[in-house]
Amino acid sequence: MNDSIDFEKMGGLAPAIVQDNDTGEVLMLGFMNAESLALTQKTGFVTFYSRTRKKLWMKGETSGNRLEVLYASTDCDVDTLLFRVRVQGDGLVCHEGTRSCFTKELPVAPRPSAAEVKR
Amino acid sequence: MNDSIDFEKMGGLAPAIVQDNDTGEVLMLGFMNAESLALTQKTGFVTFYSRTRKKLWMKGETSGNRLEVLYASTDCDVDTLLFRVRVQGDGLVCHEGTRSCFTKELPVAPRPSAAEVKR
Repeated sequence: MNDSIDFEKMGGLAPAIVQDNDTGEVLMLGFMNAESLALTQKTGFVTFYSRTRKKLWMKGETSGNRLEVLYASTDCDVDTLLFRVRVQGDGLVCHEGTRSCFTKELPVAPRPSAAEVKR
Repeated sequence: MNDSIDFEKMGGLAPAIVQDNDTGEVLMLGFMNAESLALTQKTGFVTFYSRTRKKLWMKGETSGNRLEVLYASTDCDVDTLLFRVRVQGDGLVCHEGTRSCFTKELPVAPRPSAAEVKR
């Protein structure tokens, strides 16, 4: 059922965004190959392909913070994946002990509307 | 100011997630090299590096749907970027005429809690 995903653009991988279904918070980004996507779809838990370890890994399998998929989609180019999830366990997805991995702010030129930012 | 981002893991690029600041909706994913990130930070508008066209492109520069950055961050591995934006113009980010590029649902094994999904 993954025939439609374009894994070739990135040498067999596609970026996979993980978003908290309730809060909308973007939690992390990992990569999937066809096999890890198939496992994610079959098990209902996000399973990535680790580029550094060159193996499949179900996120949270050891920590207990598995990512239960509530809704999955792909984009117009069918080369990126988006998973809306419920985090199991203590909900701390990042190995640094935070809910989201995106904790490091980057400076951007201030614009008038920047004051309205919701954080 | 981009010295901290690890572009090398992906041959000079980093995935860049774009999220609507008000709704939390994930709108699209593109790629940035160091130059496009620097331009994004300097101008306050999301500027990608197109892998297919091999050139920089400020998203929405011609359509008017530019992506005004309200908040930018990177993750624990400093190899992925996240931009919370306000879409200018008619707000239709996707070239297919939708707000988000993630419109194609993928099947996932049904789980008990899937009934609670917010769409």
